[in-house]
Amino acid sequence: MSVAGYDRGSLRLEVIGVPGIPEVKSGDDLGKLIVEAAVANKISIEDGDIVVVSQKIVSKSEGRIVKLSEVEPSEFAKNLATRIGKGSEEVEVILRESNAVIRVRCNQGILVTETKHGFLMANSGVDKSNVMEGYVTLLPEDPDSSARRIRERIHELTGKDVAVIVSDTCGRPCRLGLVNIALGISGISPFRDYRGKPDQYGKMLKVTVMTHVDELASAAELVMGKARMVPVAIIKGYSYEGSDEKATSVIMPEESDMFR
Amino acid sequence: MSVAGYDRGSLRLEVIGVPGIPEVKSGDDLGKLIVEAAVANKISIEDGDIVVVSQKIVSKSEGRIVKLSEVEPSEFAKNLATRIGKGSEEVEVILRESNAVIRVRCNQGILVTETKHGFLMANSGVDKSNVMEGYVTLLPEDPDSSARRIRERIHELTGKDVAVIVSDTCGRPCRLGLVNIALGISGISPFRDYRGKPDQYGKMLKVTVMTHVDELASAAELVMGKARMVPVAIIKGYSYEGSDEKATSVIMPEESDMFR
Repeated sequence: MSVAGYDRGSLRLEVIGVPGIPEVKSGDDLGKLIVEAAVANKISIEDGDIVVVSQKIVSKSEGRIVKLSEVEPSEFAKNLATRIGKGSEEVEVILRESNAVIRVRCNQGILVTETKHGFLMANSGVDKSNVMEGYVTLLPEDPDSSARRIRERIHELTGKDVAVIVSDTCGRPCRLGLVNIALGISGISPFRDYRGKPDQYGKMLKVTVMTHVDELASAAELVMGKARMVPVAIIKGYSYEGSDEKATSVIMPEESDMFR
Repeated sequence: MSVAGYDRGSLRLEVIGVPGIPEVKSGDDLGKLIVEAAVANKISIEDGDIVVVSQKIVSKSEGRIVKLSEVEPSEFAKNLATRIGKGSEEVEVILRESNAVIRVRCNQGILVTETKHGFLMANSGVDKSNVMEGYVTLLPEDPDSSARRIRERIHELTGKDVAVIVSDTCGRPCRLGLVNIALGISGISPFRDYRGKPDQYGKMLKVTVMTHVDELASAAELVMGKARMVPVAIIKGYSYEGSDEKATSVIMPEESDMFR
C-alpha cells in the first residue's frame, strides 16, 4: 500500500460528494459502504484519490454513541452544566472525553476542552446533531486508526491506494463560524512543506508549512453538507506524498500553544 | 451584477489553478491579467465561478510594498526587534500596520498583532517572501474593496458575474502549520448557515454556521502553491448566495475572542 511518486503540483482538482450512504450503525463496514455508494454514483475510485469521511459516521460505525439517560453526572458536571446552560448528563460525557477544561464561557454556553487525543475543541467533540434524540456521539477513540482501517478496506475491495481523512467541524478562536479540519489521517503527510524551496525571487521560503490535510478537509466540506446527508467526498487530482504520520502531529505542542 | 439563484447543493466542484500571470507591478490591472491568463490557459470564466486571488499580487498591484532601508524605526520597534530577533525596520513596518500587539513570543520570534482591519495575525501580514530582497509587502488597505474592484473588472471584460476572494495564509493558535483564509470578499456571503435547517433526524441544527469563504480559500490554496507562481485559482460548480457582506464580518468580536 505505498502511496508515493504521484506527480506533484497538479493545477486541477475535483471534489466529489458521495451521496446514498445509508444510516450507519455500530459495526457497519464503512469501507464497504463507501465503495458501494461510489459505484452506485458512478464515481471510480483510483490510486491517489483522497477519501474524506465525516467523523459522525465513523463514530457511529464504531459504536461511539451514548444514551444520555444512562449517564450519572458527577457533582462537578452538575455545577458546570448549570453555569453554562447545558444538560448535566451531556457535560458529564464531555468531561469523560476530556483531559482538561481549557475555557468556560458561561454566558455563551461555551466549553473548550482538550480531548483525550490532545485536540482543543468545543465540548471534546461530543455532539447532539445527526443522532437520535436523547443520544450524543463521541469522537472516535483513535481517528488515525479509523482512517487506516477505512483505507485498508478500500484497498481490499478495489485494489486502489487512496489516502483517507476523517474530518470534523471546528471553531477558531479569532474567526467566526466553523470550518472542517482533519481529525484522523492515513496514507498522507499532514503537511506540505515549502521550507528550503526558493520563492520566485530565489529566496528560500523559511516558515511556510501548509497543513494541507486541513485544507483538503475544508474543500471536502463544500460538497458534503451537514443537512443533506453526504458524509463522504472524494478528491481527485491532488498530488501528495504518502506517509505514516498521524493527524495528532498537527496538534500544537502545549508549550507553543498561545491559546492556552 | 446580481449573483443569486444559483442551484444550491452541488455535489461536484472543480478547483483550477491559473498559471502564467506575469510579475505584478504597482498599478497593474489585475482583473485584466486574470482574464488574459484564463484565456491563455483555455479556462472559461462563467457566471457563478469563484475567483480566488492571492493577497500577495493584490498588494503588489496596489503598490503596498515598502523598501526597508527607507524606514526609520522607533525606539519601541528597535527594542521589540532585538527581543524577537527581527530587523528593526521590519518591526517598525509591522507596528505601523497594527492596531495592537496581541502576543510576543521572543524565543520563537512570533509577533501576533491586530491589523488595522481588525484581523489577528502574525506580523500584521507584513511579509518578505515573494518580493525583492530588501522589501516587504503589506496587506491591501481594504481587501474587500480590492476583491470588489477585481470582480467588477472581470464583469466589464467578460460580462460574467463571479465572486472574488482575496486569500491569505494564516496560522492557528492550536494547530501547527498554515491554511489559507479569506481576507477580502466580493459577491459572496462569508457564511453558509445551517441554522434552522433540520438534520437527518428532523432536529434543528442550532449552531452550525460554516465560514465557507475560508474553506474556499483553503481549497484554492491546494492548486495555487507559493513556490510555483500560481497566484489565482478558479472554483467551478460551487453554489452560493450573492451578498454585499465583507470578509471583516468574519472577525470574532473582541468581547467573544477567547484568544485575546
